Amino acid sequence: MAEERYDIAIIGSGPAGLQAAINASIRNKRIIIFGTEELSHKVVKAQKVSNYLGVPLVTGIELKNAFQDHIDKIGIQITYERITNVYAMGEYYALMVNEKMYEATSIIMATGIEYTKPLKGELEFLGKGVGYCATCDAPLYREKRVAIIGHNMEAVEDAKYVNELAEKVFFIPMFKEKFTLPADIDIVEDVPVEIIGEEHAKGIRFNNSELFVDGIFIMKDSVMPDQLVPGLELENGHIKVNRNMETNLPGCFAAGDCVGKPYQYIKAAGEGCIASLNAVSYVNNIKEHQ
Amino acid sequence: MAEERYDIAIIGSGPAGLQAAINASIRNKRIIIFGTEELSHKVVKAQKVSNYLGVPLVTGIELKNAFQDHIDKIGIQITYERITNVYAMGEYYALMVNEKMYEATSIIMATGIEYTKPLKGELEFLGKGVGYCATCDAPLYREKRVAIIGHNMEAVEDAKYVNELAEKVFFIPMFKEKFTLPADIDIVEDVPVEIIGEEHAKGIRFNNSELFVDGIFIMKDSVMPDQLVPGLELENGHIKVNRNMETNLPGCFAAGDCVGKPYQYIKAAGEGCIASLNAVSYVNNIKEHQ
Repeated sequence: MAEERYDIAIIGSGPAGLQAAINASIRNKRIIIFGTEELSHKVVKAQKVSNYLGVPLVTGIELKNAFQDHIDKIGIQITYERITNVYAMGEYYALMVNEKMYEATSIIMATGIEYTKPLKGELEFLGKGVGYCATCDAPLYREKRVAIIGHNMEAVEDAKYVNELAEKVFFIPMFKEKFTLPADIDIVEDVPVEIIGEEHAKGIRFNNSELFVDGIFIMKDSVMPDQLVPGLELENGHIKVNRNMETNLPGCFAAGDCVGKPYQYIKAAGEGCIASLNAVSYVNNIKEHQ
Repeated sequence: MAEERYDIAIIGSGPAGLQAAINASIRNKRIIIFGTEELSHKVVKAQKVSNYLGVPLVTGIELKNAFQDHIDKIGIQITYERITNVYAMGEYYALMVNEKMYEATSIIMATGIEYTKPLKGELEFLGKGVGYCATCDAPLYREKRVAIIGHNMEAVEDAKYVNELAEKVFFIPMFKEKFTLPADIDIVEDVPVEIIGEEHAKGIRFNNSELFVDGIFIMKDSVMPDQLVPGLELENGHIKVNRNMETNLPGCFAAGDCVGKPYQYIKAAGEGCIASLNAVSYVNNIKEHQ
């Protein structure tokens, strides 16, 4: 159970999320912002940024440091956890970090645009043998055969955990870093093409082979926003918003690359500002009517 | 006549205009940006700005200096002239500074929101005895009686010029700074309430008196955007734009406070970015089809 309900939860610590956190903090809202230590993968990788008005001709790292300095001065701390699911509960949103839950009256999606494209069949079998949360669902596959498609190093830890319960684990690494796994886990050095099955997923098809299993976990850094927040409306691959940065779900706002082009830091920050002030109004309005 | 046609003309040197100029310059467009030495009246007056991500806890002057530093580094120079009218000519826009003309394929309105509210009757008699450009229209009132309602010090210079042609000039100062005028100009220390007339303006009504004249000039810092650009569509007092910052006029974009709330610098800059990149696409598209 969540211990306290936040006014506004912000998912993402790029320019949109940070600007949203700043505006909401200044307006004295109880906020929580989920992100990473490097704030934004994209910003820190930028060689040179010349078009963020007021912070001229900097490297991505310098811009990231300017952002960090700003939130430090305001007193904003980022929660280094990855939200795995968000559910609209009516009066509030439930934000899941695996089995841990946070509650917030309003949410701001600032998740960026770096999604891993779903495999053929992935969405069709989601919840029917395909899952994104090994920690949550591993017990379903006790004494069964499980495949883990891992897009990041965290998947290695998940594989070890699943291996304690399952009869047999296959690990399919989609990343280049070195890793070590227990010897009884089979490592499949091939690229999955499709999740196959009928009513229920029954395996993975590769270019020249098939692997039959009872369950498949796909571990990736980010999922499409409508998988993260069921019911969220998309348009051309972006979260659909109006000029107030409102999505189709009341109390759910979005800003930054995830709502559309141009993919520019200052545009993301500007939208974070709009989303945040509208989220503040939303929260105030709900409190006044309680 | 204009000597050269710019790709993009930007009206306003606040955060929206500056960000637009930066993006368009980086994209190698021929731009001109009209504004003032202090860049933005609003920014320089701000005591403290804490919510412009990346430039934490600064005074308005410091933020303005950061903006100036940025455009200096990019090599953007501001043209210190006030656009008095803009006409959509089909293939291009004609931007008037009194009788001087600039041409641009695309324009970005970043004019802010500090408009002087029109007087009762002002819009009704505009072009029928009421004008905003003394330099342009003074010859119409040779040997006639003219009133000048002046909202800024520039109006003082206009009054001197009109006085060389007109039979009699009345000056109605709407500002507090001290000024000097030739002795034959009558200074009216009262607040205009209405422009009166029938087919044509015939005078100004004050609270307890009326002044009958042949022509009236109203000299103010900014006019409503749809008076500046005839045909421009407004909505609730703001320029109507979509999420691409497109107005109803092809090639005319808008950004910042003039398109709506929240009136925040980072929001304005973000919109300037969007407007600029879409103006760049518009210009490129026109060039490809020539």
